[in-house]
Amino acid sequence: MNTIILKRISQLRDRMAQHGIDAYIIPGSDPHLSEYPADCWKAREWISGFNGSAGTIVVTRDKAGLWTDSRYFLQAEIQLEGTGVDLYKLKLPEILSIPDFITREIGKGGKAGFDGNSYSVTEYQSLKRVFDRKNITIESSFDLIGEIWQDRPAIPSGKIFELPVEITGISVSNKLDTLNNKLREAGADCTILGALDDIAWSFNIRGNDVPYNPVAISYAFISEEERILFIRPEKLTGEIALHLKKEGVILADYSKITTYLQRLPEKTRILVDPDRTNTALYKAIPGHCRIIEQISPAAHLKSIKNETEIEGFRQVAVKDGIALTRFYLWLEKQLQEGNKVTELSASAKLSALRAEQPLAIGDSFKSISSYGAHGAIVHYTPTEETDTEIKPEGSYLLDSGGQYLDGTTDITRTIPLSEPTEQIKKDFTRTLKGMISLSKCKFPAGTRGCQLDILARKALWDAGINYLHGTGHGIGHCLNVHEGPQSIRMEENPVLLQPGMVMSNEPAMYRTGEYGIRTENMMLIREDSETEFGKFYSFETLTLCYIDTRLIIPSMLSPRELAWLNRYHQKVYDKLSPHLNEEEQNWLKEKTKEI
Amino acid sequence: MNTIILKRISQLRDRMAQHGIDAYIIPGSDPHLSEYPADCWKAREWISGFNGSAGTIVVTRDKAGLWTDSRYFLQAEIQLEGTGVDLYKLKLPEILSIPDFITREIGKGGKAGFDGNSYSVTEYQSLKRVFDRKNITIESSFDLIGEIWQDRPAIPSGKIFELPVEITGISVSNKLDTLNNKLREAGADCTILGALDDIAWSFNIRGNDVPYNPVAISYAFISEEERILFIRPEKLTGEIALHLKKEGVILADYSKITTYLQRLPEKTRILVDPDRTNTALYKAIPGHCRIIEQISPAAHLKSIKNETEIEGFRQVAVKDGIALTRFYLWLEKQLQEGNKVTELSASAKLSALRAEQPLAIGDSFKSISSYGAHGAIVHYTPTEETDTEIKPEGSYLLDSGGQYLDGTTDITRTIPLSEPTEQIKKDFTRTLKGMISLSKCKFPAGTRGCQLDILARKALWDAGINYLHGTGHGIGHCLNVHEGPQSIRMEENPVLLQPGMVMSNEPAMYRTGEYGIRTENMMLIREDSETEFGKFYSFETLTLCYIDTRLIIPSMLSPRELAWLNRYHQKVYDKLSPHLNEEEQNWLKEKTKEI
Repeated sequence: MNTIILKRISQLRDRMAQHGIDAYIIPGSDPHLSEYPADCWKAREWISGFNGSAGTIVVTRDKAGLWTDSRYFLQAEIQLEGTGVDLYKLKLPEILSIPDFITREIGKGGKAGFDGNSYSVTEYQSLKRVFDRKNITIESSFDLIGEIWQDRPAIPSGKIFELPVEITGISVSNKLDTLNNKLREAGADCTILGALDDIAWSFNIRGNDVPYNPVAISYAFISEEERILFIRPEKLTGEIALHLKKEGVILADYSKITTYLQRLPEKTRILVDPDRTNTALYKAIPGHCRIIEQISPAAHLKSIKNETEIEGFRQVAVKDGIALTRFYLWLEKQLQEGNKVTELSASAKLSALRAEQPLAIGDSFKSISSYGAHGAIVHYTPTEETDTEIKPEGSYLLDSGGQYLDGTTDITRTIPLSEPTEQIKKDFTRTLKGMISLSKCKFPAGTRGCQLDILARKALWDAGINYLHGTGHGIGHCLNVHEGPQSIRMEENPVLLQPGMVMSNEPAMYRTGEYGIRTENMMLIREDSETEFGKFYSFETLTLCYIDTRLIIPSMLSPRELAWLNRYHQKVYDKLSPHLNEEEQNWLKEKTKEI
Repeated sequence: MNTIILKRISQLRDRMAQHGIDAYIIPGSDPHLSEYPADCWKAREWISGFNGSAGTIVVTRDKAGLWTDSRYFLQAEIQLEGTGVDLYKLKLPEILSIPDFITREIGKGGKAGFDGNSYSVTEYQSLKRVFDRKNITIESSFDLIGEIWQDRPAIPSGKIFELPVEITGISVSNKLDTLNNKLREAGADCTILGALDDIAWSFNIRGNDVPYNPVAISYAFISEEERILFIRPEKLTGEIALHLKKEGVILADYSKITTYLQRLPEKTRILVDPDRTNTALYKAIPGHCRIIEQISPAAHLKSIKNETEIEGFRQVAVKDGIALTRFYLWLEKQLQEGNKVTELSASAKLSALRAEQPLAIGDSFKSISSYGAHGAIVHYTPTEETDTEIKPEGSYLLDSGGQYLDGTTDITRTIPLSEPTEQIKKDFTRTLKGMISLSKCKFPAGTRGCQLDILARKALWDAGINYLHGTGHGIGHCLNVHEGPQSIRMEENPVLLQPGMVMSNEPAMYRTGEYGIRTENMMLIREDSETEFGKFYSFETLTLCYIDTRLIIPSMLSPRELAWLNRYHQKVYDKLSPHLNEEEQNWLKEKTKEI
């Protein structure tokens, strides 16, 4: 019996009864729909004990359930033990969906509720469509967890800092002017920004409010006349407040966004990104305004890096490459010398090596440091409980990234720790063929990510293998390591790939209980050529880190694939060696030698 | 001055004035939204003289315009001369769209009209959305052309014929039972079928009402209790009427569909495919019914061929291959002997050779018989005016197909007529690499066409070349050569590729003013293998016709591509030679010899 959780759920049911609510929904997200919510918004974890990155709790008068995906089935079962919360496994065919569960439990005429701050407009609308058909009322104005969570942490109040124009490439006033131009093109007078990275990019600010993403809790409202940053005053230094004012920014308290929206004048045409705006803000907009729902122009502008940002990415690739070279050399020596290294101590070492680099400010996500069979668990990150010693046998998959003021990195390598088997070599080479094929491809303007995705998978598909995650995501500039709106994946995404976008390229394969393989580079999309058939784009690989050739079967690579690999290794050596000592140089020379 | 057209438009304007209509829209489609409308439904051609396969006319009180795409710019300019109808070039950025043109011309409060029979529900809804925002009324109940078209042809009254179960593989009653199961799964009680090929497939009937597509003008209504074929009585023989009744089909007059729909009882849940149903039928459904809009289950079931149909496709591939072998041998001899052959006479010869084959009933579309630079005009078909002599120089592209009772074909080959240049050989080999890559590919269950499309284009993209049409379409079984709902093209189409689907594979490249290259085979999707990663599918090539190796640069092909080609040629020879005479055998042996 988990008495703490049982008591909290019982308190929640009391509140539900007071408000006449039959089912209360607690999604995992925060008012900014962030990948990493601040502690004050971890309502789902507080009410259930489950702390996976994805999952929604529903509590009715006599039942409670958690809906989460296959990454978290095992973790959820452990964490929900004794809480009375049942696990509903998402995407399994026989499992009730949340709307179906609520419909069955509370029936027609019932009332469901949630905190409008915790759901995007898109999610709310899709839920509402189902409930409307079933005659179920849905109310978004109840923060019942807020009512019962006594020692709820405060909203983070850390100071923000300015990212100077020498690093961002474009001043705040220029960015906001461009944003206003885009709003005009879309037929809108103004927009709300709710996504923290959109705001950080637009105002050239960064913060420390959540792990890994250097963003600051805030909202923004942007029109031709008013460019308002809603932020708690204690987060501002006098210097940055002055700077922002000089750039034409009005500063207002974080809590004032709702009343500000409620007072928007008649006929205001406001652009709202339904995936990046929470329901509470959406509902604050008066009925006399016209809402234009489309992807935020800030998200789009942010995805296309300017020349200064691109130069920053090239710089951080060198810094990251130095840290990674030193790390893999260190790891090899530790194992040779018989010193104990674990998944956690290895990733801590890499973090320390990155931290030595100029302008480094931390990791860009929690390292996926996975030894042996752990590598086959796609979203594995070691904890104190699972931490395993890395021994000189099998293979080691490390997916990690750094935050630097001048850019963000994301890289995965898989290395053998003993003489590799034929099977892992075949699997590794097939995965590598996909990575190379996507790296080398040239494509016409107007191409979407899902058209290119097969290039990364084809050699795997030929062998009856597939991986179920995406192949590429956008990467922020000293911002979120997972950034939209573009992607390279099997699923349709209408966003066109455009020059200036920085993306990951990470085909993979996983043999459950044995090992996982993933090789990931970052790439920049750039203009390639213009012919009578139109403009063509191609990729420039940014990441600089050797790919372990002991796992490659050279005869499985085409002459062009081999040439790509050897050229890449030459470039890695040339760019990194001037920054390395002699021992490191010799070691890297060997790792990057032609095959 | 084209006085005939001017008079017709003037008569139309009189009618518009009588009905208070400010803008009248005349799309090219018929009540069944067919690719080839019967003559009685060529209202757009009658009012404007323009007879391209795509285009919409809009007439206001003082202006008239035709909107058509780049395939028809030249033809439209010629055909519209002296008619007062202006050409609006679709997809050119500066050109007004139809809704924008109408909005500008008739303004707020204006009234637009069209014949509900001539627009799909999807097209109507998208027009209505725009006009609602602009305060323009849109009425779908006016067939003004019908009021003034004195000598309008009658609706075709040709007899239908039954395709026996030995050819279709599934009886009518079985097909209708399956359809009803699918309706139940979709939560519907019944559906309307408006697309003629969906009806022909569901009732195992064929007809001769339009060129190339062996369909019969009819509608159908299907529910568990009533399976009604709405068709003119004179189209039925006593025998087929009896057969259909035995299969549980109720026969009703074609004209009765509207009143039947108007009398649907309350709460009927009716499935309507908005792309395959015209607006008039949609509007006939009473407001007390619930309309479920989704793709027709008949279209989906039809796309997945059964074993008998697949065997038919394999048979017609042999028959078509024999006709094509004889044709290309004949053409070679004609040119060697200095006999005059033109684009039209060549395609007539091929039609005649196909007609000699058992169960042949005609061509499946108008042959794209294009010599030299005509090959670069994607949708070129020769007319008396453009017909050109095929001389022993340059290249010849022939895209053609046959209708047989046991299947339908679609094939393109490009052949050299003299020593080919290096450029055309490079272009041909790149196109061929794409065709082979798609033919050889293996993909997991759940894949959509747009994911595979790049395989056909990659070798072209690598050289800065692209083609702007699709790579593959579905093909009917003794039905329409262009069949949905699946496709392989750059654009997103959510329909999954499934075993049993028959599709074209037709990468191409076009050098304007020089030549066009297209190589097209038909392929069947079949189950390939099942691994721990799931089910995988692959393609079986159906088409049996040599690919001209004189246009191939072997060193540009990978060893696997070469092996595919040589295996394919061996198969072509093995399957066709038993049916050929000695001269034909020797000639084909040479054409299919290993390279």
